[in-house]
Amino acid sequence: MVGTGLIGGSIGLALRAQGWHVTGSDRDPTRAERAVEVGAADAVGVDADAEITFVAVPVASIPAAARAALASGGLVTDVGSVKASVVDAVDHPRFVGGHPMAGSEQDGLDGADASLFDGATWVLTPVESTDPEAYARVRAVVSSLGARVVAIDPSRHDELVALVSHVPHLTAAGLMTLAAESAEEHGTLLSLAAGGFRDMTRIASGHPGIWPDICAENRAAILSALDRLTAVVARARQLVDTGDRDGLLTLLEAARRARTNLPARVAAHPEDVTEVRIPVPDRPGVLAEITTLAGELGVNIHDLEIAHSAEGDRGVLVLVVDADRTDLVRGALLARGYRPTTQRLT
Amino acid sequence: MVGTGLIGGSIGLALRAQGWHVTGSDRDPTRAERAVEVGAADAVGVDADAEITFVAVPVASIPAAARAALASGGLVTDVGSVKASVVDAVDHPRFVGGHPMAGSEQDGLDGADASLFDGATWVLTPVESTDPEAYARVRAVVSSLGARVVAIDPSRHDELVALVSHVPHLTAAGLMTLAAESAEEHGTLLSLAAGGFRDMTRIASGHPGIWPDICAENRAAILSALDRLTAVVARARQLVDTGDRDGLLTLLEAARRARTNLPARVAAHPEDVTEVRIPVPDRPGVLAEITTLAGELGVNIHDLEIAHSAEGDRGVLVLVVDADRTDLVRGALLARGYRPTTQRLT
Repeated sequence: MVGTGLIGGSIGLALRAQGWHVTGSDRDPTRAERAVEVGAADAVGVDADAEITFVAVPVASIPAAARAALASGGLVTDVGSVKASVVDAVDHPRFVGGHPMAGSEQDGLDGADASLFDGATWVLTPVESTDPEAYARVRAVVSSLGARVVAIDPSRHDELVALVSHVPHLTAAGLMTLAAESAEEHGTLLSLAAGGFRDMTRIASGHPGIWPDICAENRAAILSALDRLTAVVARARQLVDTGDRDGLLTLLEAARRARTNLPARVAAHPEDVTEVRIPVPDRPGVLAEITTLAGELGVNIHDLEIAHSAEGDRGVLVLVVDADRTDLVRGALLARGYRPTTQRLT
Repeated sequence: MVGTGLIGGSIGLALRAQGWHVTGSDRDPTRAERAVEVGAADAVGVDADAEITFVAVPVASIPAAARAALASGGLVTDVGSVKASVVDAVDHPRFVGGHPMAGSEQDGLDGADASLFDGATWVLTPVESTDPEAYARVRAVVSSLGARVVAIDPSRHDELVALVSHVPHLTAAGLMTLAAESAEEHGTLLSLAAGGFRDMTRIASGHPGIWPDICAENRAAILSALDRLTAVVARARQLVDTGDRDGLLTLLEAARRARTNLPARVAAHPEDVTEVRIPVPDRPGVLAEITTLAGELGVNIHDLEIAHSAEGDRGVLVLVVDADRTDLVRGALLARGYRPTTQRLT
């Protein structure tokens, strides 16, 4: 393990739980020592005979660390959020680029957790020069941590995360900046910010430390995605400006359809699950009542979301449950005065 | 009550619960009859002696409906999402513009609920020509429904909701549109869309029906807010393009600070509450365990949020509890193996 922060520490914990012997190093030696203390590594240092090395350092430092690890004969993979520049720079048959789509609000080793990758998507970016045996072995180890592996071309990975992660993050920060600027003039502004606005800007509350690196390494894809966002905002502006009601409805209806079809996290078999939507007052007692009720009925909740309306804090609790338990859940909710609606996910 | 949909029906239910006699009319006569059936009105029709008339019809229809209601001698208020055009068009001492910041994902009378306004912000927009007695009476009635009344100038209201509601909604639709367009080419895209993206685009799943009206009536403020968003996105683009790491950190740090200071919904007295952040695996059993635990400890949860990280589905459960119960909650969570951090809101 090169780098024993949040991701490195979590990989160490998960591998050791399976009986692997883990050696960990870190730019900060006290952090490597702490990794041993918390059980994320067996020993501090670099194992010249390592079967596999996970490089879990900031993106800009990955190529040098990966090349150093490749000097021994084992496999090397990384966990950087950007892939094309890393894969190009390392360019070795025994190197497989990787990106676990997992994180925690807690930075560093304190947030490390053996179950961090359970059910998470883990991108691997094999290229033509990658040794197929190396890829198969890295894939097997990563899968054993509970992750769903998706193989993508490195450049395509970068385009896609620009669209679903990097640009949304910058946009949330932009919306929050606008609101903050206006709140200075208008003290009442933030009292009008309801659940929908809170949902949209929530990711802007994350630690900004990793973003300069990500923006530097994925510059081209982020610029292109920002341009596409600007174009779609300009399209919406044009529809508002010209009062094109049909055009607006078409845009919003298409977005609504796409959002509704956004796959629930754990719907590996969407044909087997049902979405149950329950309008609820946005207070926690209700949440406990409904989740406890599901437990009492022996119904497994695959996914749960609290959807706020754009204005107001009234919520809809969205549960994803096994399709064959739908009637049971529905009946129990109706008996308690809730008004659930149900919908198959396929 | 003119218009017996979601908002009109909810007002009717809440007023009748207090002993008011409510008469309701609707463009759709069967809907007015259903309002009587579900207990949202005592009778169908227009009461010429009404003490107060709530006009709860689509924004474009408000001025005519309000003027008709003013023909009798009572007070008239409305619930439209846009205020300047309405207040200008009606222009009467006995008319007080209003906008309850409350909604439900369920459209129409089916979503109506007497508690819809409990704790919600309700904007009133008195102007120079408004009779102070009329304003005071409307304010008292609205407060009696459980809403927190905020008085704002109509044009300022429109600018502010453009920033925290209308433009965020269009932006969420834009981000979802981009992702949907790319998902057609790249089947794997949506599997990379983690919790942060789901949070940001959630409001795009709302019914689009009300938006053409809102965009038409609040055109100027929305165009101006869209221009400001475009400018802030261009600023971020410039920082990415030139590799200005310090500039990016400054932008993101300011946004983070603003988001962290976004007031919790019920923090009427922020000096009395503490925010408890608990990293949790994003599965519902945990939610039930923690909320039930709070119940057993007799700790009232004032607010609850599930914050996803930008990448990955690992969540942080954010609870707002009374400051004097912080140690109790913290101890109980630590005893169960959670790692809470706590923070005063002031």
